[in-house]
Amino acid sequence: MQITVFRYGHRIVRDKRVTTHCALVSRALGAKEMIYCGQEDNELFENIRRIDKKFGSDFKITYVDNYIKKLEELKKDNILVHLTMYGQNIVDTVKQIKLAKTSKGIVLIVGSQKVPVSVYHISDYNASVTNQPHSEIAALAITLDRLNPNILNDNEGFSDAKVKLVGDNDAKRKVKMR
Amino acid sequence: MQITVFRYGHRIVRDKRVTTHCALVSRALGAKEMIYCGQEDNELFENIRRIDKKFGSDFKITYVDNYIKKLEELKKDNILVHLTMYGQNIVDTVKQIKLAKTSKGIVLIVGSQKVPVSVYHISDYNASVTNQPHSEIAALAITLDRLNPNILNDNEGFSDAKVKLVGDNDAKRKVKMR
Repeated sequence: MQITVFRYGHRIVRDKRVTTHCALVSRALGAKEMIYCGQEDNELFENIRRIDKKFGSDFKITYVDNYIKKLEELKKDNILVHLTMYGQNIVDTVKQIKLAKTSKGIVLIVGSQKVPVSVYHISDYNASVTNQPHSEIAALAITLDRLNPNILNDNEGFSDAKVKLVGDNDAKRKVKMR
Repeated sequence: MQITVFRYGHRIVRDKRVTTHCALVSRALGAKEMIYCGQEDNELFENIRRIDKKFGSDFKITYVDNYIKKLEELKKDNILVHLTMYGQNIVDTVKQIKLAKTSKGIVLIVGSQKVPVSVYHISDYNASVTNQPHSEIAALAITLDRLNPNILNDNEGFSDAKVKLVGDNDAKRKVKMR
């Protein structure tokens, strides 16, 4: 299941850490790319690239200026799932997506600032991880885990990693260099 | 299962949003309290209180100065689970906790800045949600979901809420006032 994350909105100063967390969570939990709109941020790009080179994978981070054009394009080959406080239950949504057995990819849309109505309209699903206010990072993480729970069983990391953490209960910070 | 979240470290300017996300995720996903150390932050306290009053629950947010004393005290009645990039697999950890059928509560420890060795030592489990760098908010969310997955089936929210969101796939933002 090919998963892309679409981050709606990025303000360089205000959203730096939260957007970085979104990108790292996407990468760690099996998404192949994060696309974002808002302010283009080279430092964000470089930070993610640096981590990706060190720990492996070929996660992409891409900026787009025109979000709606990009979402229209993505909709041809993907199911668009917008994560919002106002949507239907994520448990039902994941069930429906899996039952549909589609060969399409999935785009998970997470907002930073207020998301325009057009995003609600273009999405195939508006889905909520609880109807409580909390965190787009958390909503994204739980949705990625629920779509593909096996990813958490993988202790091997990415095959092209330069540094690999081999954790245990003592957390002795073993690091394998390749 | 009584769950408390312990946030190690808070810097008022730098960590404002991330600590807020941690608190809101804890509340939304069934934890009863978040305790934090670092810089005491009245605005953080007030923000969480305001959301809690509006959307219900009696989630507590508590500041402690001496984190190790507090963790020692909590350890008497709780299993301490430190979420770190260097720990054993979270899937195994959750399995072990559930198999133990303990009557103790659980304290989930999440760091902001570098966590001192004493926290690794005092913890019953050092557990990793992947051995990749990503986000303490995501690690916390996934662990809460995995410990108590039924919480996501609840569409009712908290009984004492003043405002309740009733989401659906159209995300028409229905709000029920009580």
